Amino acid sequence: MKQLTVILYNIRSTYNVGAILRTCDCLGVDEVIFTGYTPFFDKGLPHEQEKLRRQIHKTALGAEETLKWRRANIDDAITQLKDADYQIIALEQGENSLNLADSPELDGKLALILGEEVHGIPMELLQKCDQLLEIPMLGQKESFNVSVATGIALWEITKPCLSGTRKHLRKP
Amino acid sequence: MKQLTVILYNIRSTYNVGAILRTCDCLGVDEVIFTGYTPFFDKGLPHEQEKLRRQIHKTALGAEETLKWRRANIDDAITQLKDADYQIIALEQGENSLNLADSPELDGKLALILGEEVHGIPMELLQKCDQLLEIPMLGQKESFNVSVATGIALWEITKPCLSGTRKHLRKP
Repeated sequence: MKQLTVILYNIRSTYNVGAILRTCDCLGVDEVIFTGYTPFFDKGLPHEQEKLRRQIHKTALGAEETLKWRRANIDDAITQLKDADYQIIALEQGENSLNLADSPELDGKLALILGEEVHGIPMELLQKCDQLLEIPMLGQKESFNVSVATGIALWEITKPCLSGTRKHLRKP
Repeated sequence: MKQLTVILYNIRSTYNVGAILRTCDCLGVDEVIFTGYTPFFDKGLPHEQEKLRRQIHKTALGAEETLKWRRANIDDAITQLKDADYQIIALEQGENSLNLADSPELDGKLALILGEEVHGIPMELLQKCDQLLEIPMLGQKESFNVSVATGIALWEITKPCLSGTRKHLRKP
């Protein structure tokens, strides 16, 4: 089994944060790191924390309580993960990005960085990554919603561990 | 290339509808059929239509204008698609569901049914489907968000067409 960390960098919407947490739980992600202005409920006044907690819970549906997570500075997180032999992968289009549809070999310790909804991951951050990973598209519009893109990327990375697996947790 | 139709059945949230439309556009879905109480903006008073249109646009970001879509009765839609030799696939867990991680062969004309966020697809509808398709999970929580699950399923179905493809539509 892989070791898999997800880094949320400047994800703006609590809806996206919640949906991503739920996906991380479903696909066995080991840790989620909140960086930049990604909302979470460990800062601010008590009533602000409670409001954010409720908003995230609305889509996370409890995954925020079962998952391991922490808040960190993005540069510190990358340095620390590199020191621990993690490969740092940005989910972003780029000149030399790996095409997710070509089933690139993504094994060992991985940290996947997900960037802001509109502008993606800034260049200075991409330069610190070992790989860029791109989801190819057929359509006319700009890009996937970030929580959908995260689901597709994490699915493709964890799929080899899921073959033959079945869990019927939801009542029919 | 496959022929791919997506059927939204009783999807409640405009956020999910919008995110799914964006995904359908990105992955080259040919048609989206709105059934049950799935919100869309072709019914009601003009100001109600406009409000719904704005809500869906907020996440669909224009995919609602480029995609081919129609509203239909679910039973009529299934009958008509079966008559046109479509395989009807429900994205739902079940006793004999195909495991998406085992890369089931899904080719030809496909219609994928996505069900309501909490209770999924009701039994009487499942009985009209040719196959159930299940996304296996590793985690502790209940299930994926419906727009994330849709993204994963459509990705897996269209992936064979995407290998080697690259489109850099978003500015870096």
